[in-house]
Amino acid sequence: MAGRQGSSRSRAARCRIITVGDELLNGIRVDTNTSWLADKLSEMGIMTEQAVTVGDDPVMIAASVREAVGGTDIVIVTGGLGPTLDDRTKEALADLFEVKMTPRPEVEEAVRGFFEERGRETTRVNLDQALVPAGFECRVNPRGTAPGMLKDDGSHLLFVLPGVPGEMKALFEEWVGPLINDRYGGRRVIVRRWYRTTGIGESDLFDLVGGLEEMAPAVNLAYLPSPEGTTLYLTGSGAHEETLEALLDSAEAHIVRAARQYLYTTSDIDLPEHIADLFSRRGLTLATAESCTGGLIASRLTDVPGASEWFRRGWVTYSDEAKVEELGVPAEIISEFGAVSSPVVISMAEGARSRAKTDYAIAVSGIAGPTGERPGKPVGFTCIACAGPEGTVVKEHHLGSGGRTRNKRRSMVLLLDLLRRVVDGLDP
Amino acid sequence: MAGRQGSSRSRAARCRIITVGDELLNGIRVDTNTSWLADKLSEMGIMTEQAVTVGDDPVMIAASVREAVGGTDIVIVTGGLGPTLDDRTKEALADLFEVKMTPRPEVEEAVRGFFEERGRETTRVNLDQALVPAGFECRVNPRGTAPGMLKDDGSHLLFVLPGVPGEMKALFEEWVGPLINDRYGGRRVIVRRWYRTTGIGESDLFDLVGGLEEMAPAVNLAYLPSPEGTTLYLTGSGAHEETLEALLDSAEAHIVRAARQYLYTTSDIDLPEHIADLFSRRGLTLATAESCTGGLIASRLTDVPGASEWFRRGWVTYSDEAKVEELGVPAEIISEFGAVSSPVVISMAEGARSRAKTDYAIAVSGIAGPTGERPGKPVGFTCIACAGPEGTVVKEHHLGSGGRTRNKRRSMVLLLDLLRRVVDGLDP
Repeated sequence: MAGRQGSSRSRAARCRIITVGDELLNGIRVDTNTSWLADKLSEMGIMTEQAVTVGDDPVMIAASVREAVGGTDIVIVTGGLGPTLDDRTKEALADLFEVKMTPRPEVEEAVRGFFEERGRETTRVNLDQALVPAGFECRVNPRGTAPGMLKDDGSHLLFVLPGVPGEMKALFEEWVGPLINDRYGGRRVIVRRWYRTTGIGESDLFDLVGGLEEMAPAVNLAYLPSPEGTTLYLTGSGAHEETLEALLDSAEAHIVRAARQYLYTTSDIDLPEHIADLFSRRGLTLATAESCTGGLIASRLTDVPGASEWFRRGWVTYSDEAKVEELGVPAEIISEFGAVSSPVVISMAEGARSRAKTDYAIAVSGIAGPTGERPGKPVGFTCIACAGPEGTVVKEHHLGSGGRTRNKRRSMVLLLDLLRRVVDGLDP
Repeated sequence: MAGRQGSSRSRAARCRIITVGDELLNGIRVDTNTSWLADKLSEMGIMTEQAVTVGDDPVMIAASVREAVGGTDIVIVTGGLGPTLDDRTKEALADLFEVKMTPRPEVEEAVRGFFEERGRETTRVNLDQALVPAGFECRVNPRGTAPGMLKDDGSHLLFVLPGVPGEMKALFEEWVGPLINDRYGGRRVIVRRWYRTTGIGESDLFDLVGGLEEMAPAVNLAYLPSPEGTTLYLTGSGAHEETLEALLDSAEAHIVRAARQYLYTTSDIDLPEHIADLFSRRGLTLATAESCTGGLIASRLTDVPGASEWFRRGWVTYSDEAKVEELGVPAEIISEFGAVSSPVVISMAEGARSRAKTDYAIAVSGIAGPTGERPGKPVGFTCIACAGPEGTVVKEHHLGSGGRTRNKRRSMVLLLDLLRRVVDGLDP
């Protein structure tokens, strides 16, 4: 434990991440590896100071690895290890360190096993996965064929991992993470807390809560706006966990006091997870009746493990007939008020609750766009309702023409926010 | 037109992207701006050679901007322009270029207008948005309060944009894109084509198709595996569009011949868009009955604009009672074979088709995990069925324990692939 005490604790270990792939620099694919790795590193008290993305070009790969290894404790490279010709990371590393590619029997055996298990033949291109630059340790990939690689000079760690997220994560969890934690973990404590709000803009929230400058430099408060609401994100960093937690407690008390009416959770969960928690803790059951959101709400709710305990059934009533036949919405209400109207969503929610025999049911109908507007009902007009033991609450919103999928997400958030307010007995 | 001919066409203009924000380096948020910008630049024939992410640290921001502007034609910085204290990009730029912050009346006016329009008061922190480093041109933000900024020394362009994706995109579309295109567009043509496959792994597909090495260096073929299938991504780059298209045509003929049975589209659309296209072109209608996917399939199908033309209704029958009451699945079948079984999904699909009176109906039931396994039915066991005018097709799959949301996505892809094969009269 001696090495984890005293002055060595004063500097957080630092990491640089390099992601490789033409597909990340031409709009084909979004890099999610950096964010995932940074999150895991942060949990160990390790700061990611920079992330770089380069294409499948051995010269650019070698240059960015050379620059990164000089200035930091840990470098993690992902991508460019696939079996096809566009993958060139190993070639770049062999050039950079002036070493030859050498065959690794343990990797070859694993690759053969991988294909045998799946009843497929191992081809030449797959066996090339067993060629690794000399001087690198190897780790067999539990989910694919490209091995993880490590160059360790005693004071710096250079990891090279496949870019496929599932394979990268599996290698990190069982190999990279524990190794980094042994050498660099716990030098410094990083503590984070989340405060999720909905129904208020970033600058109005800032006017309420402020910047907590008086607590700097140990505490930082960031504002993260998204279509699902603004999240306040509080981070503290220091050598002593207890001192830090106390500091964060007093910051939290201020935040909760200032933002109370907009805050729906003080833990790192999103709105569907919050609803899941609420319903399973209280033994309640739910049904959904969706028109414009097209199943998004049911899908996000059932992303939460254990949803079958409290989520009973859902309808996607995209046509007028479906609303009438499945949920018992009177056809006259639709013709009088239109499918996107408060009377229709009230009837949808009550019909869903009665058919599914659940404690609560929620319903939404709206004009997601880009077409479909009607007189007095522009794109973005959305009606939401929540039916429960105490009756039915309905709301109308104008979400604007910010795009079809954005409007689906915004409708979902407004409806789940309405639901949690009704269930929690708050002003809806 | 003279400037767009001859030798100046031989070198593609190059861009570097810098994204700023602590939230991008601690796992809180995934950077989607880089991919979006790279896609737009690529359409103009401009290559993104590197992307860098740094935190909200003025020293790191200034260092990365200094390095980027020296070596490339265009630099685009996004992020760190918000109204709150954690945003420090402008301060970094003022330090780097040794200039003062100066107030811009046109931005102040726009900020006041932004809040007036929304019936809100303009606070001091909002008015700080009108302070911009001297020497930068400004562009009012149509979707928010942080202006876009540009430093143009005649041969290099340095753009600074807000990090909120909607604001960044709006400023790019109406200002940055046209400016870049005027100066650098069309020097070189970049053409891309996509070939989406499903039901075959990356290395097997490579064995079928190969690397097209004989066409290098003008043509590049990349393999992009994902839970939804492997996409082949063909890029050509050159000075003459006609020559390039001819080269790509011959590569395409080879790819289509080699991968025919796994290929579902040769355009840049995903499987839900492909289904939407198929159903709307043929005037067919669809209903969905989902258990383990929980509404994901209906949601993804209704993400496609115009879905109401062919998508009629969907059920999320998460409980046994819902399968019986909503879709008419006989309770005896569930008790004899279990809710995750071929007889149950056949009955779900046929029940959905008959209730919704659609041409086709699809159904899925599976064990998404992490819990719920039963004897002989491990996590990942999934049954899918497609009912249509010619009868009902059913399939069973083992997807493994790769995670709940991954299994939902994989089930969706398998079922939509089955549907398109049935509708297209292919071997299912």
